[in-house]
Amino acid sequence: MAAFHPMAASCVRISPLLPAASPVAEAEAAWACTAPYAHRRRFSATVATAAASSASAATEFDFKAYIGEKATAVNRVLDASISADEPPATLHEAMRYALLAGGKRVRPALCLAACAIVGGREAWAMPAAAAVEIVHTMSLVHDDLPCMDDDDLRRGKPTCHVVYGEPIAVLAGDALLSLSFHHMARVDSYPPDVDADKHPARVVRSIAELARCIGSEGLVAGQVVDLEMTGSAEPVPIDRLEYIHLHKTASLLEASVVIGAILGGGSDEQIERLRKYARSIGLLFQVVDDILDVTKSSEELGKTAGKDLASDKTTYPKLLGLEKSREFAEKLLSDAREQLSGFDKEKAAPLLHLANYIAYRQN
Amino acid sequence: MAAFHPMAASCVRISPLLPAASPVAEAEAAWACTAPYAHRRRFSATVATAAASSASAATEFDFKAYIGEKATAVNRVLDASISADEPPATLHEAMRYALLAGGKRVRPALCLAACAIVGGREAWAMPAAAAVEIVHTMSLVHDDLPCMDDDDLRRGKPTCHVVYGEPIAVLAGDALLSLSFHHMARVDSYPPDVDADKHPARVVRSIAELARCIGSEGLVAGQVVDLEMTGSAEPVPIDRLEYIHLHKTASLLEASVVIGAILGGGSDEQIERLRKYARSIGLLFQVVDDILDVTKSSEELGKTAGKDLASDKTTYPKLLGLEKSREFAEKLLSDAREQLSGFDKEKAAPLLHLANYIAYRQN
Repeated sequence: MAAFHPMAASCVRISPLLPAASPVAEAEAAWACTAPYAHRRRFSATVATAAASSASAATEFDFKAYIGEKATAVNRVLDASISADEPPATLHEAMRYALLAGGKRVRPALCLAACAIVGGREAWAMPAAAAVEIVHTMSLVHDDLPCMDDDDLRRGKPTCHVVYGEPIAVLAGDALLSLSFHHMARVDSYPPDVDADKHPARVVRSIAELARCIGSEGLVAGQVVDLEMTGSAEPVPIDRLEYIHLHKTASLLEASVVIGAILGGGSDEQIERLRKYARSIGLLFQVVDDILDVTKSSEELGKTAGKDLASDKTTYPKLLGLEKSREFAEKLLSDAREQLSGFDKEKAAPLLHLANYIAYRQN
Repeated sequence: MAAFHPMAASCVRISPLLPAASPVAEAEAAWACTAPYAHRRRFSATVATAAASSASAATEFDFKAYIGEKATAVNRVLDASISADEPPATLHEAMRYALLAGGKRVRPALCLAACAIVGGREAWAMPAAAAVEIVHTMSLVHDDLPCMDDDDLRRGKPTCHVVYGEPIAVLAGDALLSLSFHHMARVDSYPPDVDADKHPARVVRSIAELARCIGSEGLVAGQVVDLEMTGSAEPVPIDRLEYIHLHKTASLLEASVVIGAILGGGSDEQIERLRKYARSIGLLFQVVDDILDVTKSSEELGKTAGKDLASDKTTYPKLLGLEKSREFAEKLLSDAREQLSGFDKEKAAPLLHLANYIAYRQN
């Protein structure tokens, strides 16, 4: 546990280089650092050096408040997008049940932060932020199905098919998938201050990114190979494991970031830099997931823990060992941070902290 | 059988008003009219009157060649859009199996014809034509699942889950759904002669139409209410049956036509007129489906016949009787034709004949 602590990232301001000066920083430090870990200091120093090289703005960035604010804003959009009263009631209930179950909204935050880092107004990316969360939820609902991963617990609650039955879970997933594109394409989704000439082309390009990351080049491809691997007795090589994670997890994180940057009016060069950032944190996300499955309880995770071990599933800890997995995660985090170095430090703070959060989260 | 013959529509040119003059017309007449039916003449006369009021172009319209050409063109796009060689092979095979199983491609033809009727080049709507067929296929794959309608036969072949298993069928459906939006949004999907200023906004509007017709306002809503109805012992009122059909069938036909008209550069007034046309033929499509289920064999249909009766499913023939169902179909066909009256007769010929085809098809 010592080498890789899920919450250490939020402790940047209490590292030796950056004493916690403000009440906000102290409050966040208290929130973040519930237990001391030997390794935290080294990590903290690294992150702090990167952050401190610009201004106090980055160091005083209140990540907890940021992610909370974004989640609230996105939840409002998601809540409004599915009417509980309209028929068919069961379908809408199932969609709302899956969607409003209190996820961390990491993908929407990435989307909004990517829009902002290239100079866009976050509101321009809000429909896309909602869309990527809807796609994520849809993939969970289908992956949890009895014929798939057969999972009963998700975000601490019974899964959609457990509550509403299998047919409704399949259909709720389909409806969520189409809803995500509806969010992206509805004219009234966007604020009136978008560039009327450039905006439609940006939306079309964003929708192409979203569509690509879902199907046989993205989430679905990852799930298919994951299923094949789970049923196989042969040992899984690491490049195949990476294929699964790059598709099953990284592709949607990549789309979230890239779409935000497109809608924010980023240049092609900026968009591609952010794509690399996103690929690194995408793989990082899954490596951390694998580590958490081994090191945390179901209660802490809000989903079935130790499932990978129980099902003899190939994971990074299984292939590399826990310590090497943590080192790999560090490398990915460092790669991601490198891509942000060319951007304005203050505007880069959310994406920097989101990378840290993904690296150091506890569930 | 006499009142409503699935192939009578193609006989417009051999009606008393319009003697078959050209070899093409004679060939089509031979293809279309394999058996004489008493009622055909009255229908034929109606259609012929509408068609003849303009020019010989409409009367000489070779529907068989038209639908064959469009199907070939769309099949080429569909075939090229899923690589058989790329991994994951099983997923791509399953997608190709479902998609290239030889459907009639009515929705793509509607989309292309709607583009043309408002003065657009058909090539502008080709990506959308592929997209609507992909959405249709996806809905069939998921509706056929064991937990849903549990159908083993589709288009004369074992259904996707029978061949590839349930998990792959669910995932192939998801991948197809995202592929449809990818077709719509990929820049290289469209020919270079589209209006660069107006085109992106038209694509965005089209994608919104497509997304809306799939989810909880469209296909999925229809399937949910259909499933609820099938499991219920209570008699189903006709407005509920209409709800199911309008959502499960008409919504995608509506989207096919409306999207074609949008991409073709149609005016709002034209688009709304075509929307009404599409709603009528959409409902007509399902009424005819219900009739065919009662009157045709599995071999003729290429799918399980008599299934509605066997499952005690509510259908138009069950609620209204066969004769009244046929009258209702006639009324819908006449409503649809009325919406085409304001358009150029020659350009309207494909949509006119598509309506007739939907009314009089044999499977």
